[in-house]
Amino acid sequence: MRTNLPLEKSWKLLNHGPVTLVTSAHGGKSNLMAASWAMPLDYDPPKVLLVLDANTYSRELIDASGEFGLQVPKRRIAEQTVAVGQATGRDGDKFARFQLATFPAQRIAAPMLEQCVAWMECKVIPDATQRYDLFIAEVVASYVDSRLFHDNRWDFGTDPLDRTMHYISNGEFFATGEHFKVPTLTD
Amino acid sequence: MRTNLPLEKSWKLLNHGPVTLVTSAHGGKSNLMAASWAMPLDYDPPKVLLVLDANTYSRELIDASGEFGLQVPKRRIAEQTVAVGQATGRDGDKFARFQLATFPAQRIAAPMLEQCVAWMECKVIPDATQRYDLFIAEVVASYVDSRLFHDNRWDFGTDPLDRTMHYISNGEFFATGEHFKVPTLTD
Repeated sequence: MRTNLPLEKSWKLLNHGPVTLVTSAHGGKSNLMAASWAMPLDYDPPKVLLVLDANTYSRELIDASGEFGLQVPKRRIAEQTVAVGQATGRDGDKFARFQLATFPAQRIAAPMLEQCVAWMECKVIPDATQRYDLFIAEVVASYVDSRLFHDNRWDFGTDPLDRTMHYISNGEFFATGEHFKVPTLTD
Repeated sequence: MRTNLPLEKSWKLLNHGPVTLVTSAHGGKSNLMAASWAMPLDYDPPKVLLVLDANTYSRELIDASGEFGLQVPKRRIAEQTVAVGQATGRDGDKFARFQLATFPAQRIAAPMLEQCVAWMECKVIPDATQRYDLFIAEVVASYVDSRLFHDNRWDFGTDPLDRTMHYISNGEFFATGEHFKVPTLTD
């Protein structure tokens, strides 16, 4: 199901603006949180931007390790996506608390989450922009659920629970809606 | 129809990851382009992140003026959104070419676009991050179509053409789909 995606295609995983889940690990501790403020920064080598509040436990683990996992959840785990965004890992293991299974990453120490549709393993590029709670990071591995993303594009199929989501606030989302195409100048 | 939104609420206009249109002006010239890589950076004072390729005409006008208009188009102008992203303003006025009407901004010189559902006027914060083709900017005015965003939230109504869009590539989009709510820890 999980299929490696060429790194130079990884921008497609975030281009439509889905909510994300961020995993991190350092010194035997690991954590996860939700983030709506994640987007591509560059195509090749691929980079992403991620905004995480300086007070979060995730930020602490990422600052210490220089790495994070960035993944796109599907609606099936919408409830957990909101819940992990509201709880702190300082109070206990959120993976266990919210029954979110993980698998080992390829290039980083942070665990990666099952029940997502796209994954990116990222290494932080140290930069002055951290004073804005901002990470600039390079994508060093990327993969997709090949049932839902194949031939270099999303194809969500017929199950509405397999779609990505766009977060509003306070537990409210928009589902990723119908696909449509408009003529382009090169069509 | 256009209703000023308190600046500290302006992050809500981009939080769901819609495609955007960027307007700019300098020295009697103006331009617009499409950008998927725009997101909030901070709540209050509000800041946004916008990634624009260093080779674009828009980048040239924004570097010179230190300002840009950031707005969220609706599906009704999906075709023009793609078209302006594929053409360059160096070859002629894209506002006229693609029949996109504008109105004067409140705080910046760039024209703002009719036929959108949300608008932000932005001033660039000079920063070392520009070597990543990145802008960090402060929102200095924000407004919404009050038919579609009121009581501090999106309410798109029944016309599918009034919805925001999530860009994929090559003229393909996902519509903003159904609204749904999941329980939160504070519900």
